[in-house]
Amino acid sequence: MTNTRENPREYYEDFENDFSVDFTVPGLSTSDIIAFATDYDPQRFHVDENEAANTPFGGLIASGFQTVLLCFQPFCKAVLQNAKALGAPGIDTLKWKRPWYPGETLDVNVTLADKRLSSGRDDRGYLSFRMTASVNGVPTLVMEWAVIVLTREEVKV
Amino acid sequence: MTNTRENPREYYEDFENDFSVDFTVPGLSTSDIIAFATDYDPQRFHVDENEAANTPFGGLIASGFQTVLLCFQPFCKAVLQNAKALGAPGIDTLKWKRPWYPGETLDVNVTLADKRLSSGRDDRGYLSFRMTASVNGVPTLVMEWAVIVLTREEVKV
Repeated sequence: MTNTRENPREYYEDFENDFSVDFTVPGLSTSDIIAFATDYDPQRFHVDENEAANTPFGGLIASGFQTVLLCFQPFCKAVLQNAKALGAPGIDTLKWKRPWYPGETLDVNVTLADKRLSSGRDDRGYLSFRMTASVNGVPTLVMEWAVIVLTREEVKV
Repeated sequence: MTNTRENPREYYEDFENDFSVDFTVPGLSTSDIIAFATDYDPQRFHVDENEAANTPFGGLIASGFQTVLLCFQPFCKAVLQNAKALGAPGIDTLKWKRPWYPGETLDVNVTLADKRLSSGRDDRGYLSFRMTASVNGVPTLVMEWAVIVLTREEVKV
């Protein structure tokens, strides 16, 4: 994971406006795709190679939820685990722009789209992240969501 | 799963405006929560009971992604697997309104919020579903997303 500095960011104030991290997610095997989709998203183009070949996708593709999770996990380990994070109230944007086929490496970039202090609580703020996962420069997944992170000091807004 | 009729819905036209299905998702054990979060969302309030007790959540809570997937899977098996569905371009609304604690059963309802024919293709339409998962009547998850489903006959729009 490439990052703009070495010190872990713990508090809201530690996340600079030009925050940006990049990492890659290795390509999946067909059995990786089928195993996940069998548990969570058993549509024919995620679980059956022959049936998938007869859909407009032309072959097996990963569940969009698997794409989200395999991009989220490395970000969580590298960034959220070090932060005084209190979860997220939801996802603001989630677009699957293109299918993710077996063997394709994802290039993932996460930037800070916005940061704002809580209007109701003086000990926290919202960090809005924008994640883009691409295959050979073509966006596959775009996700934006806000994470609640404690402030280092109490702040009156 | 309770449903408003017996015949499976295959095509866009088969989904009536008052479509509604209800089902329950059994409560999770702490080990269910920790296993999923260790793989995909290893934040302290999802993977460590002691650390979780010292957060505002007061104890271990499921990853919001686990909530989504465990509600989506039964809907996928009961409805999407029977339909001529071609996936979803994204998620329009995803809100985690309240944490999901161990042992809490989810009551899930899925309705059709909107349906519209594709403006660019004469063989498909968009079915916008609204899913609400509640614990004792209190919403925990709200998700809205559109699924592309083939029309029974080609339609000029």
